[in-house]
Amino acid sequence: MLQLPQEQSFALSLGVFQLVCLIFFAVHFETITPKSAEALDSPNRADGYYSMYMDVHVMIFVGFGFLMTYLRKYSLSAVSLNFVVGVMALQWGIITVTMAHQVGEKHYPKANIDIPALINGDFAAAAVLISFGAILGKTTPTQLLWMTFFELIFYAINETILMESLEVIDAGGSLVIHTFGAFFGLAVSLQIGAPPSHEQHHNTSRYTSDIFAMIGTLFLWMFWPSFNAAMVPSDGFRQERAIVNTLLSIAASCASTFAATQVLATAKKFDMVHLQNATLAGGVAMGTACELALNPASAITVGLVAGAVSVTGYRFFTPALERRIRLSDSAGILNLHGMPGVLGGLAGAFATMALSDDNYGDVLTSIYEAREHRSAHEQGGYQLLAIVVTLGMALVSGTVVGMFLRSPLLFRQQQQKYEDEEWFHLPGHVDLLPLGSSPPSQREMDSTFGTQSPQTSYEPMSIKTS
Amino acid sequence: MLQLPQEQSFALSLGVFQLVCLIFFAVHFETITPKSAEALDSPNRADGYYSMYMDVHVMIFVGFGFLMTYLRKYSLSAVSLNFVVGVMALQWGIITVTMAHQVGEKHYPKANIDIPALINGDFAAAAVLISFGAILGKTTPTQLLWMTFFELIFYAINETILMESLEVIDAGGSLVIHTFGAFFGLAVSLQIGAPPSHEQHHNTSRYTSDIFAMIGTLFLWMFWPSFNAAMVPSDGFRQERAIVNTLLSIAASCASTFAATQVLATAKKFDMVHLQNATLAGGVAMGTACELALNPASAITVGLVAGAVSVTGYRFFTPALERRIRLSDSAGILNLHGMPGVLGGLAGAFATMALSDDNYGDVLTSIYEAREHRSAHEQGGYQLLAIVVTLGMALVSGTVVGMFLRSPLLFRQQQQKYEDEEWFHLPGHVDLLPLGSSPPSQREMDSTFGTQSPQTSYEPMSIKTS
Amino acid sequence: MLQLPQEQSFALSLGVFQLVCLIFFAVHFETITPKSAEALDSPNRADGYYSMYMDVHVMIFVGFGFLMTYLRKYSLSAVSLNFVVGVMALQWGIITVTMAHQVGEKHYPKANIDIPALINGDFAAAAVLISFGAILGKTTPTQLLWMTFFELIFYAINETILMESLEVIDAGGSLVIHTFGAFFGLAVSLQIGAPPSHEQHHNTSRYTSDIFAMIGTLFLWMFWPSFNAAMVPSDGFRQERAIVNTLLSIAASCASTFAATQVLATAKKFDMVHLQNATLAGGVAMGTACELALNPASAITVGLVAGAVSVTGYRFFTPALERRIRLSDSAGILNLHGMPGVLGGLAGAFATMALSDDNYGDVLTSIYEAREHRSAHEQGGYQLLAIVVTLGMALVSGTVVGMFLRSPLLFRQQQQKYEDEEWFHLPGHVDLLPLGSSPPSQREMDSTFGTQSPQTSYEPMSIKTS
Repeated sequence: MLQLPQEQSFALSLGVFQLVCLIFFAVHFETITPKSAEALDSPNRADGYYSMYMDVHVMIFVGFGFLMTYLRKYSLSAVSLNFVVGVMALQWGIITVTMAHQVGEKHYPKANIDIPALINGDFAAAAVLISFGAILGKTTPTQLLWMTFFELIFYAINETILMESLEVIDAGGSLVIHTFGAFFGLAVSLQIGAPPSHEQHHNTSRYTSDIFAMIGTLFLWMFWPSFNAAMVPSDGFRQERAIVNTLLSIAASCASTFAATQVLATAKKFDMVHLQNATLAGGVAMGTACELALNPASAITVGLVAGAVSVTGYRFFTPALERRIRLSDSAGILNLHGMPGVLGGLAGAFATMALSDDNYGDVLTSIYEAREHRSAHEQGGYQLLAIVVTLGMALVSGTVVGMFLRSPLLFRQQQQKYEDEEWFHLPGHVDLLPLGSSPPSQREMDSTFGTQSPQTSYEPMSIKTS
Repeated sequence: MLQLPQEQSFALSLGVFQLVCLIFFAVHFETITPKSAEALDSPNRADGYYSMYMDVHVMIFVGFGFLMTYLRKYSLSAVSLNFVVGVMALQWGIITVTMAHQVGEKHYPKANIDIPALINGDFAAAAVLISFGAILGKTTPTQLLWMTFFELIFYAINETILMESLEVIDAGGSLVIHTFGAFFGLAVSLQIGAPPSHEQHHNTSRYTSDIFAMIGTLFLWMFWPSFNAAMVPSDGFRQERAIVNTLLSIAASCASTFAATQVLATAKKFDMVHLQNATLAGGVAMGTACELALNPASAITVGLVAGAVSVTGYRFFTPALERRIRLSDSAGILNLHGMPGVLGGLAGAFATMALSDDNYGDVLTSIYEAREHRSAHEQGGYQLLAIVVTLGMALVSGTVVGMFLRSPLLFRQQQQKYEDEEWFHLPGHVDLLPLGSSPPSQREMDSTFGTQSPQTSYEPMSIKTS
Repeated sequence: MLQLPQEQSFALSLGVFQLVCLIFFAVHFETITPKSAEALDSPNRADGYYSMYMDVHVMIFVGFGFLMTYLRKYSLSAVSLNFVVGVMALQWGIITVTMAHQVGEKHYPKANIDIPALINGDFAAAAVLISFGAILGKTTPTQLLWMTFFELIFYAINETILMESLEVIDAGGSLVIHTFGAFFGLAVSLQIGAPPSHEQHHNTSRYTSDIFAMIGTLFLWMFWPSFNAAMVPSDGFRQERAIVNTLLSIAASCASTFAATQVLATAKKFDMVHLQNATLAGGVAMGTACELALNPASAITVGLVAGAVSVTGYRFFTPALERRIRLSDSAGILNLHGMPGVLGGLAGAFATMALSDDNYGDVLTSIYEAREHRSAHEQGGYQLLAIVVTLGMALVSGTVVGMFLRSPLLFRQQQQKYEDEEWFHLPGHVDLLPLGSSPPSQREMDSTFGTQSPQTSYEPMSIKTS
């Protein structure tokens, strides 16, 4: 940044970013300090929300982090950068979302940091990490930090518009998180550009990295019901319904993915990229409608469609977009978050219009506050409007931020695409063996590891020279 | 199936299976729709059961999935097929168990899908995935789907007989889940047959796959208390007692496994197969008795025996059964689930007869409903009968389903045993590099990965040709 | 031990250890047996503590276990020995801590094993596994068992002194767990000695083992709020405050680690050792003060300092200590647990003195029982004294136990440092292929795995001979 050496630009950017967070927390937030004996008898808020919060936390750091380890030479970067970006995003997300709502309400009290605030921080981190997926392997850590900083300002504005002005429902964030994160990331990636094909050697997986990525996939898949239900109020079985609807939908997207990958893939074999990603599309697509009184078959149908659309995207859309408009989407977020997110928004709008108020009885306005003064069709219209607003906000702000990040005056660009080596010490350097020690013999290595010994790789070299 | 090309048979089977589930869910199940304001004040069912359900969910998808990645060339299949089979089994299990109980009670109302129903779905998936262990690497995905479909019908019948007719306790499923799943799977495997030794090259592990398998082992081991306690009612500390008894038992089986593996194993070294599996036997063996008022030392003793029996099985019984009756048991489910399951059934029966009613006071009949009209010894007799019934159901139905699956008219059989390649796109194909790009130099690869570069493998080839 | 062959010494030691635990559980502990109908209506203790207990459980077995898989040839040992040591430590820890408190109170009733007891068992296991980190790869499994046995006696004495005599707060164990475990382990390691440099070939990581270690790091990092809050009473939002303070602190240590590693590391690149470990220092450092009414910025500042101190330790202190006083600290526990633990003790003492009683109101004496008769400054003085007591107890008892473990009369020492092979069957031996089978062709292996085939390693050998 500003022509600083790369390591200084990163450490300086991180330091400034953390300092900004520290100042906001110091002056505008406060701890929970109940002072009366009554507080001793109040229900323990650590019970209600906390175990779901931990599930969401696992999705952010292990789920997203390991899902992105699939690249064969970028696994350390994927899991590590996901870690630090997640940490900065959750802090900054708490601040920006709190501030945006206060600006919306024109009321600025000191805010508490409690467990719901932490969940909102993780939700904000999810949006940023989705965007990260589009540019995985193509940007420097410094650029990622600044993307996080700016993205969350627009994220918070969009969230506030949807919740406060449009008064829509979106408990699991089909729109606020997935649609916004995906189209913001795609807009950034379009600005950054697609690497030429000779820089794409390493834009592929290894056998081992494909297994690591499944750790991410499975933790995301298993805990998605917690993600969608975490912020649903626990009254009136709404939280339980959000859990059940999400489970049915994400189970269905797993099923349709396994069917679709084999039918559509080359050579009619399972494609791990599809299994790692499209299996999750049903969770994304149930983010808006999860708390509604859907028939179980409707939830399953949404998931089936989401999985099939997602596989189709990976198989046909992503390569076509890269060929035609140089839009490179490393992890295929259009297919996992973009299209299923919009589908989720549509499902929410349609269910809002189609389901009879009889399904809700007295609970109706605790789900849709605005139904005090809106008809079901009006509410459905606002739900549709929210999709358009989110798409517009994401594409415009993503384009602006992308233009900023690609500026050669401000940022050095990533040199070795899809490779750890530019930023990470890597193990396995033969010359790291202590001086004077003889390397272990070939025989010894064989009997221990088969081929994973660091010796094998230069053994052929010694043959050449002899 | 019916001589369809393999990819069509799988996608078609999966589509039909999912359609059957969809229809049942559409016509016979309904969502949770509380309509009165009172519902707003009802306790949140998402609290009580949900965090244990998520633990069970992790056991099914990460626990079983990664435990089976131990094969050196079948890791992608193991984790992926575990995923899709688990997803179909949990849907179909909800349906079959619900329907079997309704048939038992001759009463057919529309059923709710709530969190306890989801736990029952995961329990059903556990039984199927245990059976999968016996035939790991030897059947096609299509065969697995049809095994799942038929197994769960018999599973639900057996579960209903045990719970409704015999009125036995089995909260953690020593009988219903582990004994049934294991002996069903062994009966299927006996029909499928054991591969000749020249097809068993790959029936072994790699260094890395042994570590991946430990992910599965540990998540199963840690969350087993949740598995056994999930469906125990939370009244009267029963759930807490189920947790404590299971923890003590599974800790003890870990200890006896580490002792036994070293004493019994060849060369007196730790055998990872034992550590990955037999350490869990104490959880299986505490599935029936977990909620009873056992002395802590009794719970530990059950676990110690289970671990030792399991190691003995891996060391001596499994190879002997393959040699003598061509019974191939890939993951050793006889040792992890079969024998410990029966042991758990015996422990439950014995504890039922031996423990004084004074331990339970007024709580007695909320544990054993049938104790209203049965003596402790009668109840113990029914517990023993349940073992026999389960073994009989499992062996007969498993044999029938195995004969169906091995039919060459209906199913193509797996060609390459214990290998992903028949069904999965595998990474690392050199010809996937973009045309015109030069491969990275050997030196570059060395400095990055040591030996894990995709180049090493053909480097010797180029030497040969030069 | 006593010149027994190694495998017998291990199995015998483990058997004796487990027998001692069994006897204590049989004679001095009892199960939970509520007998009255009222018990049916009591709140379910499985709700309140249980989901946090499971998080702690994951930290002990997956967190510590995988964190220590980073060594390139010791991953199986790391995760397996962590497993069995954890299992013995949690049993023995329940016993020693219960007995020490009973000795302190001179009152010896039979004790219940309930969920809080299980959490205390896992806390004890954490202390032992921290000590294990210092001697990773340098001691035999037998030595580890005996270290566990003796360490937990001193651990329980220290814990009882701090809680009963000094009456200090330390909910997350900055002192009781981290400081004690670290300095005990360092004292043991100083006695065991540092391997000469020619035995340190394998004291380094592989690309894959670095990724496995991140599984451990992330689960520790995510669940640390549960660790610190698990034993905080749930009244008065104290548990929620412990969660929030820990989250903010550990997030900050992640941020300062990423900045510091790049500034301080050689070649200005990220060092995975730092990212795997120092990111967690903020959780350690918030172990004492977590339940206090800290300003959010204070919690963040503690974490920032902890992360920076930890990276500095890894970069400069650990190598210097090994060079100058032959203190080998394999996993760098001085930097992850020792210094941040002391920092946490200081932060707790300082916050105790600095924060006004107005922050607590009526809740004050439910946090600090001794504040009934102590001023804030007196309490702070006792908090400082607790640091000194813990350091003294740990260093003295660790030295004694270390001298015992290094005795050549009693214990065979580890021969192959940092290697699995001495104790584990390893896969991948070519001669394990069934006789008469031809190995798969090179071409077949290439197309499947790239270079991870077990064949590659001897392919060059065959070239040499041709």
